[in-house]
Amino acid sequence: MSTVDAEALTAFCRDLFLAADAPAEVAAVVAESLVYADLRGIESHGVVRCEIYLERIAKGMVEPRAPVVLTKDEGVTGLVDGGNQFGAYVGVKALQAVTERAKRHGICALGVCHSNHFGTAAYYVERAVRDGLAMMVMSNASQTMPAAGGVRPFLGTNPLAFGFPGDREVPFILDMATSLVARGKIIMAAKRGEDIPLGWAVDKEGRPTTDAQAALDGAVLPMGGAKGSGLSMAIDIMSGVLTGAGFGPGVRNMYLDWQNPQNVGHFFLAIDIARFVELDLFKRRIGSFIDQLKAEPRAPGVEELLYAGEVEHRLQTKRQREGIQLADKLTADLKRLGEERGVAWPA
Amino acid sequence: MSTVDAEALTAFCRDLFLAADAPAEVAAVVAESLVYADLRGIESHGVVRCEIYLERIAKGMVEPRAPVVLTKDEGVTGLVDGGNQFGAYVGVKALQAVTERAKRHGICALGVCHSNHFGTAAYYVERAVRDGLAMMVMSNASQTMPAAGGVRPFLGTNPLAFGFPGDREVPFILDMATSLVARGKIIMAAKRGEDIPLGWAVDKEGRPTTDAQAALDGAVLPMGGAKGSGLSMAIDIMSGVLTGAGFGPGVRNMYLDWQNPQNVGHFFLAIDIARFVELDLFKRRIGSFIDQLKAEPRAPGVEELLYAGEVEHRLQTKRQREGIQLADKLTADLKRLGEERGVAWPA
Ligand SMILES: NC(=O)c1ccc[n+]([C@@H]2O[C@H](COP(=O)([O-])OP(=O)(O)OC[C@H]3O[C@@H](n4cnc5c(N)ncnc54)[C@H](O)[C@@H]3O)[C@@H](O)[C@H]2O)c1
Ligand SMILES: NC(=O)c1ccc[n+]([C@@H]2O[C@H](COP(=O)([O-])OP(=O)(O)OC[C@H]3O[C@@H](n4cnc5c(N)ncnc54)[C@H](O)[C@@H]3O)[C@@H](O)[C@H]2O)c1
Repeated sequence: MSTVDAEALTAFCRDLFLAADAPAEVAAVVAESLVYADLRGIESHGVVRCEIYLERIAKGMVEPRAPVVLTKDEGVTGLVDGGNQFGAYVGVKALQAVTERAKRHGICALGVCHSNHFGTAAYYVERAVRDGLAMMVMSNASQTMPAAGGVRPFLGTNPLAFGFPGDREVPFILDMATSLVARGKIIMAAKRGEDIPLGWAVDKEGRPTTDAQAALDGAVLPMGGAKGSGLSMAIDIMSGVLTGAGFGPGVRNMYLDWQNPQNVGHFFLAIDIARFVELDLFKRRIGSFIDQLKAEPRAPGVEELLYAGEVEHRLQTKRQREGIQLADKLTADLKRLGEERGVAWPA
Repeated sequence: MSTVDAEALTAFCRDLFLAADAPAEVAAVVAESLVYADLRGIESHGVVRCEIYLERIAKGMVEPRAPVVLTKDEGVTGLVDGGNQFGAYVGVKALQAVTERAKRHGICALGVCHSNHFGTAAYYVERAVRDGLAMMVMSNASQTMPAAGGVRPFLGTNPLAFGFPGDREVPFILDMATSLVARGKIIMAAKRGEDIPLGWAVDKEGRPTTDAQAALDGAVLPMGGAKGSGLSMAIDIMSGVLTGAGFGPGVRNMYLDWQNPQNVGHFFLAIDIARFVELDLFKRRIGSFIDQLKAEPRAPGVEELLYAGEVEHRLQTKRQREGIQLADKLTADLKRLGEERGVAWPA
C-alpha cells in the first residue's frame, strides 16, 4: 500500500488522458470522477479504470475529442448523443443540461445514448444536490448478472441513484448497484480464501455457491432475486430502450468487446424542489427525518444508524485529508502507464 | 376455500362502500382496485382490506366524500391534496391528472399528500401503460421495517413501480415492496409451522430469526440490507418530504392509530415516450428485449424466464375466467360485513 494525495492523483490521471489526446476539459472531468470514486471508497470505479480507459482510446473504442450533442431538446425532456465520448464527460454534459432545464422549467428528464461507462453515479447526483435539486440517475451496464431464473449474465448491475439536499453537511445520496453485492467483495473473499454467503452469486452452471472462486467464474446475483432483476431491467429500459442506447446484450463489455463501442445509456431526472415545497422547509424536513433515524434503537454491534451517502462522505473527508491508499499492484500499473506517456508519478 | 366471480365480488365491495356513504365513483374505484389486487395474487392488498377500510370510515379516519384537489399545477409538476380520501380514489385522480399533463407537456411529476393506503401500485401503472406512457409510481407506508442497523420498524415497505408499454399482450410492470419478502409469506410459514430463511426478518430484539412466529412479533427486513433501506427512505422522501405528507413515523398505522388520518404520500411520474423515441419502435424494442430474455438458458427447475408483471397477469387472466378463491375466514368476514349493511353476498 502507498498513500497518494487526491489532488496529485487527479492531476496525474488528467495528464494520462491529455497524453492520449483528450482535450483539457475531458481529461479533467474523467480524472476527477475516477478520483472521486476512490475518495468515496468505490475503488472498483476509481483510478483502477485508467488502464482500460486508455486502451479503449488507443483502440478507437472511445473518442475523447467527439462532441456531446443534445439531439432533442423540448425543455422538460431531451436526448443527448454522447458521441462515444467518455461516460464521465457525457454524464457531466448531460447533468449540466438537465439541471439548467429543471431550474427553468421545474423538471427535466434527459435520456443519453452512445455513452460509455460513467463510473459512480453519485458523482453526478452530488453536483445536482449541491445545486439544490432532487435528482435521480440511472445507467445501464454490460452483462454481469443473470435475470431471475437465468444462469448466465444477461443484465448489468445497472446502478440507480437518488439524491436530495438537506440541512446537514452530508446530503442524502443513495447510489447502488442492482446486484446484491459488488463483485469486488467476492474478489476480496477469494483473495483471502474465504467463503461467501449463499445468495451472493452462482457458479458457471447457475448453481448457488459459497465458493468465492466459483462465484467469480459464475455471476453475481440481483438483490432480492426477481426484485433486483426486475429493477435492473427497468433501469435498462429507461437508459437503453428509451434512449436508443444498447440494452441487455446490446451494451458491450469494455474489457471483452474490441469491435464495438459500448453504447451505454443513462437516464437523468432533475426536479426543482421549490415547485413542490419551499426548499428550506424541504431541507429542514430532511434534517428531522435524519434526527429521527439517528435516535432509533440500534441492533447489537451497530454504533450509529447511517443514512445513504454517509459512509462514502466520511471516507471522502478522511481521504481528502490523509490521501488515498493504493495497492502496490495498482500503483505499479499507474506508474507504468505514466512512464509510457512521460507523465511523472506524484512525489 | 370458496370461489367468487371477480365482477360479482367487485359489485359486492362497491355496495359495502356505498352503504358507508361513499359516492358511487369512489365506491367503484376502491372496490375495483381491491379486486384487481386479488386477481393478480396480491391478496394482502385485496378485499381482505374491506373491513379495515370500513372501520376507518366509521371512525372518521377516512373521508369518502372529501374532494381531491390539485393544489398546485404548473403543467409539468403539481401537488395533489387527497383530502384524506381513500388512497385508491386519490391515486386514480392523481393518475388522471398526471397522464393528461404528460401527454400535453411530455412529462409530468405529481406529488400527493393527505392520502391513505392505495393498495397495489400496479393498479395505477397499468392504466398509464395501456395509455402508452412510461410510468413510475411510489408510495410511502406506515412503519413495518427497521432501517439498516435498526431494531424496530422505522420505515414502511414503501413500494416502487415502473411500467412500460411493449408489443406484447402483457406489459412490463415491476411493482415491488422494498422489503425482501411480503409479510404475508411469513404469515403463511407461521400457519404451516415452517421456518423462514435467514435474512427475511428479525425478532423483536432485532436479532435475525428463522422462527416465523418470532418474525411476526419482530419485523420484516429491507431487501439487500442497506440498499432496500435506503431505497425505502428515498421513496419516503419523494412521497412524503417533498409533498407535505407524513414520512417515517409521520405516516400513521391504519390498524393502530385511531386519532389521526394516515397522511400517506405518493409520487407519480409519467413520461410521453414519443418525446424520446417513436412509440412503436419503443414497443418493438421492448418486445426484442423480452425475446432475448426468454431465449436465455434457465437455472435447474426453472421452466420459463419471466419479466416483471407476467406472474400477476397470468393469475389475473385465470382468475378473471375461473373466479377468485377466498379463504373461508375471509368469506365469513365479508358476508358479515354485508349482512350488517344489507348487502347480499354473491350467489
Ligand atoms: N457505471 C456502472 O456501470 C456501475 C455499475 C454498478 C455500480 N456502479 C457504482 O458502484 C457503486 C457501488 O455500488 P454498491 O451497490 O456496491 O454500493 P454499496 O452497497 O456500498 O452502497 C449502496 C448504498 O447504500 C448506502 N449504505 C451503505 N452502507 C450503509 C449503512 N450501513 N447504512 C446506511 N446506508 C448505507 C451507501 O451510502 C449507498 O448509497 C455506486 O457508486 C454505483 O454507481 C456503477
Ligand atoms: N400501498 C402500500 O402501502 C404497499 C406497501 C407494500 C407493498 N405494496 C404492494 O404489494 C405488492 C406486492 O409487492 P411484493 O414486493 O411482495 O411483490 P413480489 O415480490 O411478489 O413481486 C415483485 C415484482 O417481481 C416480479 N416477479 C415476481 N416473480 C418473478 C419471476 N419469477 N420472474 C420475474 N419477475 C418476477 C413481479 O412481477 C413484481 O413486479 C405490490 O403490488 C405493491 O405495490 C403496497
